[in-house]
Amino acid sequence: MLSKKINLKEKYSKFHKHWSPRIIAEMNDYQFKLAKIKGEFVWHDHKHTDETFIVIECEMTLKLRGGEVKLSEGEMYVVPKGVEHKPCADKECKILVVEPRGVINTGDARSELTINEDMWI
Amino acid sequence: MLSKKINLKEKYSKFHKHWSPRIIAEMNDYQFKLAKIKGEFVWHDHKHTDETFIVIECEMTLKLRGGEVKLSEGEMYVVPKGVEHKPCADKECKILVVEPRGVINTGDARSELTINEDMWI
Repeated sequence: MLSKKINLKEKYSKFHKHWSPRIIAEMNDYQFKLAKIKGEFVWHDHKHTDETFIVIECEMTLKLRGGEVKLSEGEMYVVPKGVEHKPCADKECKILVVEPRGVINTGDARSELTINEDMWI
Repeated sequence: MLSKKINLKEKYSKFHKHWSPRIIAEMNDYQFKLAKIKGEFVWHDHKHTDETFIVIECEMTLKLRGGEVKLSEGEMYVVPKGVEHKPCADKECKILVVEPRGVINTGDARSELTINEDMWI
């Protein structure tokens, strides 16, 4: 049986919560996650993996200890492992995150924003 | 020093050849590659890895032995490892491919379309 194609817009319509990534696909042991972000996330890093951010709609800022990177629709950035970062967005921004299965969204910086369960849509 | 953000449109402006993927980023041992495709590729599979196609502009068809999947802008598909596929596009289509470093574009189906070198843009 053929797998189903994945339509990003249709998937975004299935959830509304900010900072709550939803898994839409797996490739080997990597996952593609959609997120809607608004406001400021927490400073954190991922000790064992790079993390890729792709902006699908609107814009976001990736604060880094050495400065910040503004990303608009159609732009991407790979945060190297171990590099502290803090995603922020003035207005709701839709992003696609690619990273290995099992990565915790807040890294070691556990907070009320930490997501402990895999949420597929 | 901060890495640079990657703008997909700007990267697409740097090459014109069809079926000639260009690497724009690495995340761990995975690569993000842009390609412009038009016409029919060769049937092939990748024995050891899944492969992700994301359509950035226009549309493509992924022919599979069990049918075909039409993908438009904002749609993606993960071809499981070992599954034969043949990407096609009537009009030029811009895609983003995600797969491990070292994957040969034509799999074992070597042809004049086989790309043997890493081409970064």
